[in-house]
Amino acid sequence: MKELKEKQVKSERLYKGTLLGLRRDTVELPNGKQSTREVVEHPGAVAVIAITQDKEMVFVRQFRQPTGEVLLEVPAGVPLTGEKGEDAARRELAEETGYNAKIVRKIWEGYASPGYSDELIKFYLALEMNLMQTKPDEDEFVEVELIDVEACLELLKTGKIRDNKTMIGVMIAELFLKGEI
Amino acid sequence: MKELKEKQVKSERLYKGTLLGLRRDTVELPNGKQSTREVVEHPGAVAVIAITQDKEMVFVRQFRQPTGEVLLEVPAGVPLTGEKGEDAARRELAEETGYNAKIVRKIWEGYASPGYSDELIKFYLALEMNLMQTKPDEDEFVEVELIDVEACLELLKTGKIRDNKTMIGVMIAELFLKGEI
Repeated sequence: MKELKEKQVKSERLYKGTLLGLRRDTVELPNGKQSTREVVEHPGAVAVIAITQDKEMVFVRQFRQPTGEVLLEVPAGVPLTGEKGEDAARRELAEETGYNAKIVRKIWEGYASPGYSDELIKFYLALEMNLMQTKPDEDEFVEVELIDVEACLELLKTGKIRDNKTMIGVMIAELFLKGEI
Repeated sequence: MKELKEKQVKSERLYKGTLLGLRRDTVELPNGKQSTREVVEHPGAVAVIAITQDKEMVFVRQFRQPTGEVLLEVPAGVPLTGEKGEDAARRELAEETGYNAKIVRKIWEGYASPGYSDELIKFYLALEMNLMQTKPDEDEFVEVELIDVEACLELLKTGKIRDNKTMIGVMIAELFLKGEI
C-alpha cells in the first residue's frame, strides 16, 4: 500500500474569528518534499432530514451571503458549546421550522469540503413531528416549505437544489421511505 | 412572501492566499438590524463520477490535512485559470486515476457549505473510459480503487464514505445505472 499520509512540520495562525479560524500548515509529503495547506477551522454542523407523517420533507429557504442566493436547504446549524449533536438537531429544527420531533436518529456524517475545511456535517433523521403553537425564532429569516419526498429528486435534476447537504438529505429521505435505512 | 435577502453594507478583507480568501461582511437583515458574516472565498471545484464499462465507480484514497484522515473520495479538483469545468473534470480524472474519458457530462452543481463558503462544486459523469499507458502524476499521492456501484451504498451506510461530494457521487452513479439521469 502506497504511503499517503502527510506530516505536519509547521502551523501558522492566520485568523481566529467568531465562527471560523484559518491557518496555514506546512506539511512533508510522502516523497519528502514540502507543501503548504490553507485550512479553515469550523466547529462542525448538524443537518436535519425531517419527514412528516404525510411523507413530506421539511425544507427552509434562506439567503446565504457567501453565495448571494436564496437557497432551498434542509434545516441545519452549528451545535452550541457542549451541546450533543442530537440535541442540536432538535433545536435547529424547532428554531427554523417550528417542528418538534419525537424521534431524532443519526444516519451518517461527512466532511463538507475536506481539501481545505475540517467541517464535519452530521446527518439526522427527524420523525413523528408536531408543529408547535409558538412561531419560529423571529431572528431566523427563513421560509419553511414542505415537499413530497417523491418529488424531491426532480428538484435535484432541475437544478432547484443547489446545496450539497440538502442533496444528501434527499437521498437519505428516499432510502428511509424505501426501508433501506 | 417573506423578505429573506440581506443587504451588504461593508466588506473587510481578512486574508488573500494561494487558494482561499477570507473576508468579513457586515449585512443589514430584513428587520433592519445589522450582523456580520465570515465568508471563505474559493474558486470552485469539479467532482467526477467515473463509471467503467463493468459498472464500477472510480475512487481515490487520499490524505486530507484538514481532517487528519485518509478519505475515500471521487476524483475532484480546482479548475486552472480559464479552464472550462468539463476540461477540468477530464484533467483531474486523468491526473489522479490514469483514466481518459470519452464522454464527460455535467449533471448538476451545489454549494459545499453555503453558510460560510462560496465554493460551488460541479458534478460530472465520466463514461467510456480507457486506462492510459502512462502512470498518474507522480506528485499526486492518491490510491485508485474501483468499487461496484451496487456495493457503494453499503459504504455509505457503514460510514466508510465520509465526504459529502462523494455521497452525492454515489447517488448520481445509482441514478445513472437506473437510467434516471
